[in-house]
Amino acid sequence: MADIRLIEIKEEIFADNDKLAGEIRERLREKEVFMLNLMASPGGGKTSLIVQTLRGMKDHFRTAVIEGDIDSIVDAEKVAEEGIPAVQLRTGGACHLDAVMVNMALQEMNFDDLDLIIIENIGNLVCPAEFDTGAVRNVMILSVPEGDDKPLKYPLMFTVCDAIVVNKVDYLAIADFDMAALKQRVLKLNPKIKIFEVSCKTGEGIPAWIKWLRNEITAFKKSA
Amino acid sequence: MADIRLIEIKEEIFADNDKLAGEIRERLREKEVFMLNLMASPGGGKTSLIVQTLRGMKDHFRTAVIEGDIDSIVDAEKVAEEGIPAVQLRTGGACHLDAVMVNMALQEMNFDDLDLIIIENIGNLVCPAEFDTGAVRNVMILSVPEGDDKPLKYPLMFTVCDAIVVNKVDYLAIADFDMAALKQRVLKLNPKIKIFEVSCKTGEGIPAWIKWLRNEITAFKKSA
Repeated sequence: MADIRLIEIKEEIFADNDKLAGEIRERLREKEVFMLNLMASPGGGKTSLIVQTLRGMKDHFRTAVIEGDIDSIVDAEKVAEEGIPAVQLRTGGACHLDAVMVNMALQEMNFDDLDLIIIENIGNLVCPAEFDTGAVRNVMILSVPEGDDKPLKYPLMFTVCDAIVVNKVDYLAIADFDMAALKQRVLKLNPKIKIFEVSCKTGEGIPAWIKWLRNEITAFKKSA
Repeated sequence: MADIRLIEIKEEIFADNDKLAGEIRERLREKEVFMLNLMASPGGGKTSLIVQTLRGMKDHFRTAVIEGDIDSIVDAEKVAEEGIPAVQLRTGGACHLDAVMVNMALQEMNFDDLDLIIIENIGNLVCPAEFDTGAVRNVMILSVPEGDDKPLKYPLMFTVCDAIVVNKVDYLAIADFDMAALKQRVLKLNPKIKIFEVSCKTGEGIPAWIKWLRNEITAFKKSA
């Protein structure tokens, strides 16, 4: 083994964001609007899962989507094709959504009439985990081709989420991916996290995810 | 189609970083040290490509690696197993490496004795593209399972890179990935970019990548 040197670098934390996020959460709770913040790497399958989720919700809950994108509106178009209203936040370079941006989106929505808002965050496993959006639940997608080591490298993301959707299980046959090892790593960081194994392409595992989300929304509305 | 609203958000740019990056580049040029900044999504295959690259360089160039990681040293360990010195920058949350961090790493290295430094940036297609590290070449990996639409969504990354390594071509058989469409999108953003199709797993395409990099280093040393 050659030599390894280790240098630690600290980063600042933004308390103002957390304050505004708390206010958003309280405002949505008063209106019984459940907001879900969906995070993933680029290409993990956020838009595909949202489309599947919209189809599973449409007979039960009035839904809208807040789309975060750096420089395109292609995801919002896919949502709009489902007949669901979308607010597109084009961040012009910013690598995450924060409470200020989500607040701007909410000002464009008539959320009194909604049951569910899904935020599609920017494709990034780092910064989105650090910025509370005001959502009541955080969910991440990990896609099989990304590898089972991601909890070791992006621990905060796995810690802040209530559920993880392991997407693209149709790749398991050819991927070097140890599902048992992944689950062990995830649960070590976050023992309460729910884990769903799905393929947005084949539809495998989607019903269990939809069922969980519906139950979460129903329980939230009862307690709100 | 349902309604889409669009909100633009501006971000600040940090000129100090560019100044320091320029100084680093000049200092390395004086010593004829070629620095490569390697970027990708989480799980795109940065460490695998680095290991393949180290093997292709070891009889030709004296090499070291600067490893960026948020909270682990597993990648540096893989590099060290190849007998190559590594400096691990553990960013404690920061989602990219910048010139200040790279400068800290260089202070730990005796770079007078080196020909090549490879920076493994944080797994992220957004922020790393905005921060000049002082490298003379920027290279990104796009892995096939991430999808061929990434140039539409992360255009800056494709614009700042000199080469793109399309990794995991062994997934092409089962992925919905249009290589011709990808190339067209990439070349539209950056007509001069070199595109390599590889599989770090099978070794396919690696020799062409190694050949290009060796030629770049040789040309740089002649002009330095």
